[in-house]
Amino acid sequence: MIINNNELKSELNIIEELKNIFEPSNNYIGIGDDAAVLEHNILVSTDAMVEGVHFLRSEASWDDVAYKLFASNASDIAAMGGYPTAYTLTLSLPHYWTNQDHKMFLSGIKDFLQEFPADLIGGDLVRSKEFFASVTVLGKSVSTPCLRSTAKEGDFIYCTGTLGDSRLWLNKIVQKNTLPILDEDYFKKRHYRPTPRIEWIQTLKRFPLNSLMDISDGLVEDLQKLCRASKKSFYIDGDSIPLSEEAIGINNLKEHKSYYQKEALIGGEDYELLFTSPEIINEAELLKENIKISRIGRILPLQEQSFISLQGKQHKASEFKGFEH
Amino acid sequence: MIINNNELKSELNIIEELKNIFEPSNNYIGIGDDAAVLEHNILVSTDAMVEGVHFLRSEASWDDVAYKLFASNASDIAAMGGYPTAYTLTLSLPHYWTNQDHKMFLSGIKDFLQEFPADLIGGDLVRSKEFFASVTVLGKSVSTPCLRSTAKEGDFIYCTGTLGDSRLWLNKIVQKNTLPILDEDYFKKRHYRPTPRIEWIQTLKRFPLNSLMDISDGLVEDLQKLCRASKKSFYIDGDSIPLSEEAIGINNLKEHKSYYQKEALIGGEDYELLFTSPEIINEAELLKENIKISRIGRILPLQEQSFISLQGKQHKASEFKGFEH
Repeated sequence: MIINNNELKSELNIIEELKNIFEPSNNYIGIGDDAAVLEHNILVSTDAMVEGVHFLRSEASWDDVAYKLFASNASDIAAMGGYPTAYTLTLSLPHYWTNQDHKMFLSGIKDFLQEFPADLIGGDLVRSKEFFASVTVLGKSVSTPCLRSTAKEGDFIYCTGTLGDSRLWLNKIVQKNTLPILDEDYFKKRHYRPTPRIEWIQTLKRFPLNSLMDISDGLVEDLQKLCRASKKSFYIDGDSIPLSEEAIGINNLKEHKSYYQKEALIGGEDYELLFTSPEIINEAELLKENIKISRIGRILPLQEQSFISLQGKQHKASEFKGFEH
Repeated sequence: MIINNNELKSELNIIEELKNIFEPSNNYIGIGDDAAVLEHNILVSTDAMVEGVHFLRSEASWDDVAYKLFASNASDIAAMGGYPTAYTLTLSLPHYWTNQDHKMFLSGIKDFLQEFPADLIGGDLVRSKEFFASVTVLGKSVSTPCLRSTAKEGDFIYCTGTLGDSRLWLNKIVQKNTLPILDEDYFKKRHYRPTPRIEWIQTLKRFPLNSLMDISDGLVEDLQKLCRASKKSFYIDGDSIPLSEEAIGINNLKEHKSYYQKEALIGGEDYELLFTSPEIINEAELLKENIKISRIGRILPLQEQSFISLQGKQHKASEFKGFEH
């Protein structure tokens, strides 16, 4: 669940501000990437969820809330080329929180840690009027972590998996989508139980990756961040954006193609990876290893304007405004 | 600011529960101590603050809130014998939050990081109805971290600094204290800008320390935690509890001695250190290095009952119930 944050200073501005005030000392790649890099290639990131902002209590079950919170944190580590090793959890519980809620929440954490083994090593518990949870994840990278700030001109842009699925479920929840969803379980799972691409990235690192991040705020939004950090521009071939078979299956794709493509361009919280490489990677070969990637565009020099082509028409990136959490 | 958490499952129970469900793998000293210990003696801890629970907006200024949040986290690292190296910050900001509030908050962080240099390496920004902030601190220990679970029978119990000062200011805020505070600045500073004993502990580690933690929930409360973890009991000589000159100065100590002593026994958030050692440490010698410690009791075998002597009378520990955050 994501809400436009326009009234508040944008997250980017505040992080930039912190970065300027608290310039980290020489050893760190600091604030601004998906995770900070400490000595021994230890990675650290933090991500929070607030009731009413990141999820609606009426729509989400607590196990899903917990699962998603951990998944989003794990994804930040995958987005640096690493794997998560340990988590800390801060829970701020409201008065209405019941033992049953608590059990559900813990079972969601358990589900996640069974799928993606790592340790829960500490936490803090406080109370508040609304539910709030913050996770800090520690991770490791066996090789030098891959940054978002190092894309090179001419790089091919890739993403993993399929895009837009999480948003299609969000649209249903907030009733913005008049198009029916056939396989509710699929979209709900993609929204609440996203798969951080921890395993895939370990394989993908066999290719030369110039830059890497995850897609949490929407493809266009996040690619803009990557290009801002790398001082580059981009081109996306909107028609090559991977949509899930479940999305394609809805209502005959042809009639609604541009709708789904647009949702995939702006839809956040898929937690797929976005990366650039100077090489054309054989997608079919990777698919044999059950790893799905798609080549979707190219990195351009900064002086060119970023654009997205969609069904033969060129669009400015600003037409696909994403959302901030 | 601390509020009794009785309605909620106690923090201890939930942490115990997490500990049982998510037994950390062999490499970690996990949930339950002040900080978790990772490989390379890296320490991790997390601590949060919520408006209305940890502070009253009408009483605290945002720079103090920020300072205290970072200090409480740093203290958790000192409480393992380490020093902080890096912080992540999650801020959840309410609608009323102004640019001025924001500036103040950042200046509090800045003040703290100037006094206790370490890096702010990442963060997350979300919004909510009430102010919420969570910090995760990373630290290091040059030697094996010192735990709360390893106190030995016969150990002498020590604390650093003076106790109860933070609570005296809290009492004033919540108007529970009819006794006047003479030096308001002193008590306010002790409450909002506590000094994590990062530097002192590096010196204190030259002595054999069997167990160590910080005093955040009150001396008796925290000593009970230490003894529970160590499977021991304790005796405290209440008359040896160090009170500040500023507290002693108020209203002629003699008349109010037992009041101040009791406040010092239950008062949380002083962020002094509590440790045990088989040795009698020369307090006067340490004072020459500007390090103040006081010997205040002894560790007893588990089968004995913990007790506190105060002006010649023996009291059960349960008479000095502390508060949970």
